[in-house]
Amino acid sequence: MAVHLAKGTRDFLPAQMNNRLKVIDTVRGVFQRFGFEPLETPAVERIETLTGKYGDEGEHLIFRILKRGEGGKRGETDMGLRYDLTVPLARVVAMNQALPMPFKRYQIQPVWRAERPQRGRFREFYQCDVDTVGCESMVADAECVAVVDAALSELGFKDFTVRVNHRQILRAITEAIGEGERETMVLVAVDKLDKIGEAGVTKELLAKGVSQESVDQLWDILSVGDGWQALDALAEKLGEAGQVGISELRELRSFAESMGANPARVTFDPTLARGLSYYTGPVFETVINEGNVGSVSGGGRYDGLVGMFSGRQVPAVGVSLGLERIIVVMEEAGMLVSSASNTEVLVTVFSEETRGASLEAVGALRAAGVPAQVYLLKPGKLGKQFKHATKLGCRWAVTIGPDEAAEGKVQLKDLSDRSQETLSLAEAVARVTGG
Amino acid sequence: MAVHLAKGTRDFLPAQMNNRLKVIDTVRGVFQRFGFEPLETPAVERIETLTGKYGDEGEHLIFRILKRGEGGKRGETDMGLRYDLTVPLARVVAMNQALPMPFKRYQIQPVWRAERPQRGRFREFYQCDVDTVGCESMVADAECVAVVDAALSELGFKDFTVRVNHRQILRAITEAIGEGERETMVLVAVDKLDKIGEAGVTKELLAKGVSQESVDQLWDILSVGDGWQALDALAEKLGEAGQVGISELRELRSFAESMGANPARVTFDPTLARGLSYYTGPVFETVINEGNVGSVSGGGRYDGLVGMFSGRQVPAVGVSLGLERIIVVMEEAGMLVSSASNTEVLVTVFSEETRGASLEAVGALRAAGVPAQVYLLKPGKLGKQFKHATKLGCRWAVTIGPDEAAEGKVQLKDLSDRSQETLSLAEAVARVTGG
Repeated sequence: MAVHLAKGTRDFLPAQMNNRLKVIDTVRGVFQRFGFEPLETPAVERIETLTGKYGDEGEHLIFRILKRGEGGKRGETDMGLRYDLTVPLARVVAMNQALPMPFKRYQIQPVWRAERPQRGRFREFYQCDVDTVGCESMVADAECVAVVDAALSELGFKDFTVRVNHRQILRAITEAIGEGERETMVLVAVDKLDKIGEAGVTKELLAKGVSQESVDQLWDILSVGDGWQALDALAEKLGEAGQVGISELRELRSFAESMGANPARVTFDPTLARGLSYYTGPVFETVINEGNVGSVSGGGRYDGLVGMFSGRQVPAVGVSLGLERIIVVMEEAGMLVSSASNTEVLVTVFSEETRGASLEAVGALRAAGVPAQVYLLKPGKLGKQFKHATKLGCRWAVTIGPDEAAEGKVQLKDLSDRSQETLSLAEAVARVTGG
Repeated sequence: MAVHLAKGTRDFLPAQMNNRLKVIDTVRGVFQRFGFEPLETPAVERIETLTGKYGDEGEHLIFRILKRGEGGKRGETDMGLRYDLTVPLARVVAMNQALPMPFKRYQIQPVWRAERPQRGRFREFYQCDVDTVGCESMVADAECVAVVDAALSELGFKDFTVRVNHRQILRAITEAIGEGERETMVLVAVDKLDKIGEAGVTKELLAKGVSQESVDQLWDILSVGDGWQALDALAEKLGEAGQVGISELRELRSFAESMGANPARVTFDPTLARGLSYYTGPVFETVINEGNVGSVSGGGRYDGLVGMFSGRQVPAVGVSLGLERIIVVMEEAGMLVSSASNTEVLVTVFSEETRGASLEAVGALRAAGVPAQVYLLKPGKLGKQFKHATKLGCRWAVTIGPDEAAEGKVQLKDLSDRSQETLSLAEAVARVTGG
């Protein structure tokens, strides 16, 4: 019987899982240090919770679950699979009015989208979000920048840049060139600057009916370049219209640096637009500079979204780590040593007669906290068992032959240099634990 | 707008999540020490992978996902949500013929079942399975017993019993009473012994047409009682027919004890049937003796199942921890201190002017690995901020007023006894980290 995975889904075998868990545990630790607490929501949501939230395109990508009973036979659906972690957060905030505010949560769970599967794009993938709900202060935005800086650093990345911008600055720019009404269109074009260059953006804007004069104005404004000195230059060019955005970014920068974010890694980029239309304040994006990796994190302030279910205005700011991408990048860069096993010691079984002694040894190692296995197949042929130990990635092998068993000893073999010693079990455990 | 969870699903807010993560991290650690490696499979499987595996009753409980495109409009489905972790394991083994055997894996993931929701029964819940595939030796079965003993011990349980039995012993008993053809029916009745007593089981068996003579024979055989001495008595009563089962259980017992499982906690129970018909060898079930908790773990050897997709006979033995139930029991028994926050220190903000110094302090604490927060709402009113710290469960509060800021000092307040000291930031960090 041929058997397959569902389209666009993956198994994570132990070698990959060990890497994934290492990455997830690391970011979880950083999030907790920053005072973000864990939240999990169900994979399935009522269909009306999901619909109307992701635009026409997103709507088609929601996986729908067949209703129970008669309705289901007619193809009716009443639930769908979680599409992102933001709508569930908004639902949780609406349903738990007693939540202490500000509510700082992180959430690391899979989401499902009925995308056409292609290389590197999956229908089930993890999202990893950090959000602060109920806080207007730029300290919360600065924490988003600082937590990304800390998480990527702790994962071992050295050369990355957190670029920040502000939706009000972008609005001021589009208004300054007389295109305030068509802000989104202009931003979508500008957002492609990295990919298609100034000529490409110009072409696109002209094609959309933006005048040559406006385009020239745009490039004149953006000639301030990027980096924090550009923010000062921009303040002059934009005058009153950009002031709130500019002063908020100055605060954000100063707060993030005070909190210990590396100043060399955080910069201002007036061309950073972030496609999502729901951002209302600062936006941020993080790129790994080594290799051709692109963005591994994005976020911003979105004061209008979390209140969608409660009808209240609830300020919120958050950032998402591109976990799947980060894992791929780290694997390709050799930052994760893929290991199919965490086992440090294999206890061999010399014969049926000495098996009991081998089981005692593996029990003692495990009780001391050492990941240890006992050879599970037919005893005998030590060479084969040592090979198995090496395949498992074990540093050590413990053998108890009849002589050792008689003397109450074990043979401890260091598989890294093939040296071996005869020790008491307690001594062997101490050697392995470095005691 | 009214907003609800999907029927039978739950959110896990931080206080619950912190408990869940503590339990999961603990069992994960134990599994890894025993050499079980992590596996994750997708939430969605092809519908043909799921159908025909769970009996008529189970089949109706599979959540089906609407097909994309035209078929979906007609109500057709091509995928379903994972119903358990065993079928996906069998699929993984069939699809990855190069997996090193024996394959020892654990898997902790949610499953979905369209059960009628009721108190304590959910449509989305976690399963937590440990299995060894490709090993016929009773060492693997013994490891299942030992790993449950270790996991429950490490979680803090003291008074529990792992009961073991063997399907071949059960078969020998049903054959001895002349009901070998109707083994399942007899076992289903015997399995209820705990609940309905001997009289109830007798009544059920007679109603199903078992003769009074056979029922008498059954109680005569089971009069051996439980405990390991009953196994010896049973060996005599059953003669040849039960020998394989009996000698395998003796091996299992001896191996488990050699590996360090607590002998006082592992016992033989000839009435333990475990409903699932796919078990072929030893079966085990663990009950917490304190309170009226019932089974928190069950498993056994099922040599016929993992080969379902590959057409090969693949030996396998595994055990499942009832994670959801264990968490409820631990919460009710006060074994988990529910905490909405892991934060140890709140850094207050005295005024806008001193905010920078407060941010530096929170940054230094986090860099030292201390879960710390800075007060995010409007500065001022220290009393309110200390209250917030207490609500977060913080042990410490750090305050930097204008005087402290001028002197480069901080005030460290121990919220447990309200004592406070003026220290340098480095000294305060050292105090908090216990350095």
